[in-house]
Amino acid sequence: MGHRVGELARDLGGELLGPAELEVQRLAPLETADAASITFIAQARLVPQLGTTHAACVIVAPALREAAAERVAAGRGAAIVCADPYHAFARLTQRWAAALRQRPAPGVHPAAVVEEGARIDARAHVGPLAFVGKGAEVGAGCAIAAHAHVGAGAAVGEGTVLMPRAVLGEGCRIGVRGVVHSGAVIGADGFGFALHDGRWEKIEQLGSVVIGDDVEIGANTCVDRGTLGDTVLAEGVKIDNLVQIAHNVRIGRHTAFAGCAAVAGSARIGAHCTIGGAAGILGHLEIVDHVHITAMTLVSRSILKPGQYSGAFPFDDNASWEKNAATLRHLHALRERLRALEGTLGAPAARAAGSKRPT
Amino acid sequence: MGHRVGELARDLGGELLGPAELEVQRLAPLETADAASITFIAQARLVPQLGTTHAACVIVAPALREAAAERVAAGRGAAIVCADPYHAFARLTQRWAAALRQRPAPGVHPAAVVEEGARIDARAHVGPLAFVGKGAEVGAGCAIAAHAHVGAGAAVGEGTVLMPRAVLGEGCRIGVRGVVHSGAVIGADGFGFALHDGRWEKIEQLGSVVIGDDVEIGANTCVDRGTLGDTVLAEGVKIDNLVQIAHNVRIGRHTAFAGCAAVAGSARIGAHCTIGGAAGILGHLEIVDHVHITAMTLVSRSILKPGQYSGAFPFDDNASWEKNAATLRHLHALRERLRALEGTLGAPAARAAGSKRPT
Amino acid sequence: MGHRVGELARDLGGELLGPAELEVQRLAPLETADAASITFIAQARLVPQLGTTHAACVIVAPALREAAAERVAAGRGAAIVCADPYHAFARLTQRWAAALRQRPAPGVHPAAVVEEGARIDARAHVGPLAFVGKGAEVGAGCAIAAHAHVGAGAAVGEGTVLMPRAVLGEGCRIGVRGVVHSGAVIGADGFGFALHDGRWEKIEQLGSVVIGDDVEIGANTCVDRGTLGDTVLAEGVKIDNLVQIAHNVRIGRHTAFAGCAAVAGSARIGAHCTIGGAAGILGHLEIVDHVHITAMTLVSRSILKPGQYSGAFPFDDNASWEKNAATLRHLHALRERLRALEGTLGAPAARAAGSKRPT
Repeated sequence: MGHRVGELARDLGGELLGPAELEVQRLAPLETADAASITFIAQARLVPQLGTTHAACVIVAPALREAAAERVAAGRGAAIVCADPYHAFARLTQRWAAALRQRPAPGVHPAAVVEEGARIDARAHVGPLAFVGKGAEVGAGCAIAAHAHVGAGAAVGEGTVLMPRAVLGEGCRIGVRGVVHSGAVIGADGFGFALHDGRWEKIEQLGSVVIGDDVEIGANTCVDRGTLGDTVLAEGVKIDNLVQIAHNVRIGRHTAFAGCAAVAGSARIGAHCTIGGAAGILGHLEIVDHVHITAMTLVSRSILKPGQYSGAFPFDDNASWEKNAATLRHLHALRERLRALEGTLGAPAARAAGSKRPT
Repeated sequence: MGHRVGELARDLGGELLGPAELEVQRLAPLETADAASITFIAQARLVPQLGTTHAACVIVAPALREAAAERVAAGRGAAIVCADPYHAFARLTQRWAAALRQRPAPGVHPAAVVEEGARIDARAHVGPLAFVGKGAEVGAGCAIAAHAHVGAGAAVGEGTVLMPRAVLGEGCRIGVRGVVHSGAVIGADGFGFALHDGRWEKIEQLGSVVIGDDVEIGANTCVDRGTLGDTVLAEGVKIDNLVQIAHNVRIGRHTAFAGCAAVAGSARIGAHCTIGGAAGILGHLEIVDHVHITAMTLVSRSILKPGQYSGAFPFDDNASWEKNAATLRHLHALRERLRALEGTLGAPAARAAGSKRPT
Repeated sequence: MGHRVGELARDLGGELLGPAELEVQRLAPLETADAASITFIAQARLVPQLGTTHAACVIVAPALREAAAERVAAGRGAAIVCADPYHAFARLTQRWAAALRQRPAPGVHPAAVVEEGARIDARAHVGPLAFVGKGAEVGAGCAIAAHAHVGAGAAVGEGTVLMPRAVLGEGCRIGVRGVVHSGAVIGADGFGFALHDGRWEKIEQLGSVVIGDDVEIGANTCVDRGTLGDTVLAEGVKIDNLVQIAHNVRIGRHTAFAGCAAVAGSARIGAHCTIGGAAGILGHLEIVDHVHITAMTLVSRSILKPGQYSGAFPFDDNASWEKNAATLRHLHALRERLRALEGTLGAPAARAAGSKRPT
């Protein structure tokens, strides 16, 4: 499956340097690109490799136009100049995927189970051993893969794909062009119980999950249904694997969650945020737009100001960690001892250091 | 589906203030309750809203009886006085769920696979594409949903529900009135290997999982089978999504785990404990009854005294965190420097601060 | 099912002390072993129990040979002396499992779905409601359990077992003698997006997952496919439940991951490492062979030296934690204050303590 670089440049809206009819077979990272590959340079530290790579074609940013042109002039393949080479690379992966992967054929496999009253568009695919419950809707171009599960009354927007063993629970809705990966569970009960005489009384979760367009949900990720209202994921949200989104949570547009992150009930997270891997967000908090949480940080109160926030323990060799961790358990006492010393010596010492003194 | 408030008050064992024949349609949180809603006040900070809510009926604690009576006298709907309004709310969600949700019909769907020798009560439901292995038992009133899996020799107590794609492994048992959410895996092998010449030799997990009555297991949660004996979850245990319960663990009655928590092998956890989200408990530990672990805490030794325990790093804006985290890596050295200063100045400084000096 | 201790000793390559014809029924831990049990002593702290256990047979290390011989001479059962009693125990669990568990019969269940062009060895088992996609290969002695899923073009090596609801995605390959537990998802898309004008552009994941021989993958664990190349797990890797292995990661031979651990994209982890529960490894890092990470540690930079590394916050009762955590947020300021005091007093104080001063 050869791709002519002229055609690729046109598709990407980039400027082609070199022979348009040159063909590339593979999409490759810079380090392993060979004479049949197209590659890209998206990071400054990789620029020196422009001179050494054997790639047939290199996608570069405008700042590298001159260097790329020299390479082309030296007869070393072609180059495409794009405003955003990483974005261009993403678009090429899509082109390759479309060429390599067979879109499943429309129609319902005879080994699928579709309940009465389900409306499945004629252009949708429902695979073997898949289940579509009564009253569910599956739009045009959808693929409900083998073993996937669409609960009664659920709705799958046009072009959305449920991978094998994805579950979209009863009454839950997802918009168009979405992807739900294997093992994801959308619409399990939120974890709600009232403690009464030492026992947990179940709070039935009567709400649902509403997911916007262009949302991707990772493998084995859970998005719980709301208690009385809905759990809501806005347009463009991207969620990695093994993430927990609890009941009543609301996530703004184009916010992304890395793997193993977790959000407790009723938290509201803004748009254009990124939540790092295994980070946690406590319940009933608010996080505004454009907040970035680093990996393994526990967000224990609302964040009302955009920016980056962190809270992981710095790792160390075990012996050093042990000494520091043991001391940490007495940190407050250390502060008291320091304060006592300052008291003995008088304030000037502290003032000399220009430090602020918390009390 | 209107509900008369008089009937609701009777059901809840509460005192009705106002017209018994008033009808409510919806169960709503205080903020969004309208003239067709019943709501509740369970937190002191919400009391002022009693005067402003448009709810048709408000459930209040005895302390608010007078204020509620005034509201009713002013012609603004009804009120129900209950000892525990949050518990009353939980019970109303159950009433609403019973009214809104259709109980699946008894019988085995023709697209289910039931192996020889499985005993399925005539009043149980087994959905399409579900599997029940040989020798398994499914009690009266159970629902084994579409795609759910009951392994050979497993036992499901009366009224217990396996949601779509729940797995109850071979020989595992769950009591009555339980719920196992989608994707949960009960009875996978515990993670046991003996290191031998640099390779891991499998320790086959010969035990099982035994789960008591009234237990709820969240979506994609794992409860591993025991090595030689069983992993045991007592009556009333509630486990949220994506939780890991390792082999041989024992969990006492009415203990609850929030999402993404994890317990390593052979830990014993008491009754009436709560384990916060993403908290971890190392193996072979003991935790007594009435212990509460906050989110993202790593419990690295036994806890023999009831109480609340914590251990998360306090998050901060990234620049502040970075400075403090970097200093933390030298905390032990700081203590040594402080001690040296104290030595130079003499003990009185430290004594003056009343601090205890760890050595 | 009695086992003669003479036969067990022969199998294990150990020295039998006592009557070869003695029969044991059960494999039991030391504390609960009875007169029908065989047990083992693998830890020094358990040695005193050699004198008190009622076990019919005890497996001991050579150092305990004499004590074991005395016990046997006193007519208290038999003993087997093995170089590594824990390894011997592991092998006995395998023997018990083979005796207790029925190997599924070869053949494809009529309720399985096997697509055209799949090659299933005649000695393999494919259970009810399982799916094997077109072009997939399933080797001799494999068991593809009920509800398990083998994607198109995937390959399952001889003797490998996919437990109920395991997913091996399209084109992914696993070697011989592997185990994939329920709910595991091998080959979901890596989490790759290019941010462009505030939106996430999908980077299609064109690679695959390649897993070596003798690998075990835990329940609900995810191993994502590579972006352009493959995600690779070498021979002998063992992964517990709910672990996240991101795209392009490479894991060396015989490395083990405890539950809920997570590795971000493109990290390279050496051989013979152990990664503790809920530990996290950031992307694009390198970890050399023989590195051991303790539970809940975040590895935020490469580790180029073998050893043990840690980074969990030490937990405490909540009140103590709160005081220390609050102070931690001002730790850098404390250091400045300490430095100021040292400046006031002159260097000797610090020198007296022999501490190194980070600046």
